[in-house]
Amino acid sequence: MQITLKDIARMAGVAESTVSRALNDKPGVGQETKAKILKLAQKYNYRPNQLARGLAVNKTNMIAVILAEMDSPGNIEIVKNIEKAAEEVDYQIILCNTNNDLKKEKSYLSLLEANQVDGAIFIGGKLVSSQLLRLSFEEKNPMVLVNRLAEENFFTSVLTNYSQGIYKAVEHLFEQGFRKIALICGDKDNLTESEKINGYYQAYTEAGFSVNEDLIFSTGADRTSGYNAFLEIMNRDIIPDAFISTRELTTIGLVEAIKFGGYFIPDDFAVVGYGDNILTSVIDPPLTVLNEPAAELAKLSFDFLLKLIKDKLEGQQIKVLTPELIVRESSIAKYN
Amino acid sequence: MQITLKDIARMAGVAESTVSRALNDKPGVGQETKAKILKLAQKYNYRPNQLARGLAVNKTNMIAVILAEMDSPGNIEIVKNIEKAAEEVDYQIILCNTNNDLKKEKSYLSLLEANQVDGAIFIGGKLVSSQLLRLSFEEKNPMVLVNRLAEENFFTSVLTNYSQGIYKAVEHLFEQGFRKIALICGDKDNLTESEKINGYYQAYTEAGFSVNEDLIFSTGADRTSGYNAFLEIMNRDIIPDAFISTRELTTIGLVEAIKFGGYFIPDDFAVVGYGDNILTSVIDPPLTVLNEPAAELAKLSFDFLLKLIKDKLEGQQIKVLTPELIVRESSIAKYN
Repeated sequence: MQITLKDIARMAGVAESTVSRALNDKPGVGQETKAKILKLAQKYNYRPNQLARGLAVNKTNMIAVILAEMDSPGNIEIVKNIEKAAEEVDYQIILCNTNNDLKKEKSYLSLLEANQVDGAIFIGGKLVSSQLLRLSFEEKNPMVLVNRLAEENFFTSVLTNYSQGIYKAVEHLFEQGFRKIALICGDKDNLTESEKINGYYQAYTEAGFSVNEDLIFSTGADRTSGYNAFLEIMNRDIIPDAFISTRELTTIGLVEAIKFGGYFIPDDFAVVGYGDNILTSVIDPPLTVLNEPAAELAKLSFDFLLKLIKDKLEGQQIKVLTPELIVRESSIAKYN
Repeated sequence: MQITLKDIARMAGVAESTVSRALNDKPGVGQETKAKILKLAQKYNYRPNQLARGLAVNKTNMIAVILAEMDSPGNIEIVKNIEKAAEEVDYQIILCNTNNDLKKEKSYLSLLEANQVDGAIFIGGKLVSSQLLRLSFEEKNPMVLVNRLAEENFFTSVLTNYSQGIYKAVEHLFEQGFRKIALICGDKDNLTESEKINGYYQAYTEAGFSVNEDLIFSTGADRTSGYNAFLEIMNRDIIPDAFISTRELTTIGLVEAIKFGGYFIPDDFAVVGYGDNILTSVIDPPLTVLNEPAAELAKLSFDFLLKLIKDKLEGQQIKVLTPELIVRESSIAKYN
């Protein structure tokens, strides 16, 4: 147990307020009493409760980063970049993984409610809950959303333009001569995934091609889902000539399934994956990927948060960034 | 700003203690006053400060997991398993990444000092600092070390027997007929890495072979270090027939360098890597790896911590687990 102000007061035989005045170098305490108190404080290694101090000045120099998916290397990349930005101004981050579970998120919100952190950045995740709304607006807790949507976006946010990203990927595959592009994506009900599907439709429509809905395959976000998606699509009436995978782990599973089937990339199927990270970089052949600008997402979101904490942000800010298409061997037509 | 007990007292025109009694359903408050207070509390959405409450009962149902390296998929695996164990008993974890920086670790220790968490699990990292010692012993903060050593280990710990792991790997390669086994490892000054080097020596000595020190290559823990290690070893007087990489990311870099050099695994060089995770699983050919028992490390460490929190652990506990050697194609001699 840590020694408290109360303990010191008891040992010195004075009131708690006297101890507080002595330790804070305020007038009203006799020389001798002060010396006695300071000696006791030193002897028992007394430190004022940092938490209570945090409450008083409303500053802990800690922020919470609330992460919907720890399995995503892209999210980890954003976290590391937030950490870097925070370090520069002497802030530290504590990381909370919700696994996309709103109940877990709610428990972590107690960190904000109790002022254990000065603010929070949310990375990814489901639609904003009413609790988040309340914490942000009624109680003015500083918070910034990264790649997360609200029904009506009242939050300061940094977003990736997913629709434009997939549009770019489809456009690139069209240029390479591919026309039957399968899209391995998430559920339409998921706002970010429906954005991606929109980008796909838009690219087809603008190019004057019609979309074959059998080529759109909504499935889970894990590796096995990507693997199985390939097998199931191959059983449909239309055989694709290219694949776009809209998430990191499905990309890994998709490539595995193609190779395991004895097919070659890009000879048999072109592939555009998601996320430029150590995982996708290990894949052979070198993979064309859509990549979120992690460093920029991180920097902007932390800067916004810091301004919110310091009461220096005017109104709500929204910044939308475009993913980059990094073209490598996996999407280049061999004989075009 | 959150409404405080003080605010409610002011609005109701009563003492703070009266508000407290009313909210906690204690006697001594008139019916009417109580109704007024409850109404105000509801209207302004008053919640008692959870932090202060945590201080009072010394329970937050949160623990800190203090991680030396967030880049390690093996560490993330341990974290996810701790999370799973914690969830079962309604605990939540907050994750703190120190990047092996003792100064950062020190800041995170304030979470313990201020009782913002009920305890902490440390995964990996440098020798235990004096501050950690003090927090654990003088202040009786519940903490458990995973894969981290102290000069004299007074801490409740769960450890991996690294020496035995590497011993197994060398033994396996000997059985496959390899004799010139290069070891890509960390610095001898690092306690866990020196353990691994010991295992290597022990296996050679017990088999009656002598160690060629040119085959031991100490380098950084990242991917580039693994890549460069291969290039540099190939410039030495002795060409190895097999490689053991003692860390996850150096394994990735090593395999890359071998392939980039136009060599084949295991035909030209056998490889035993480190860590059975999504990263190493993506590598072609399937990689023989040493794997830490993440689920067991996590479960044991959380159980120890929970007992420490509940004052139910007798003395200091140390549990040592053995890594598993998972044999796949990369270490099988083609013509033995």
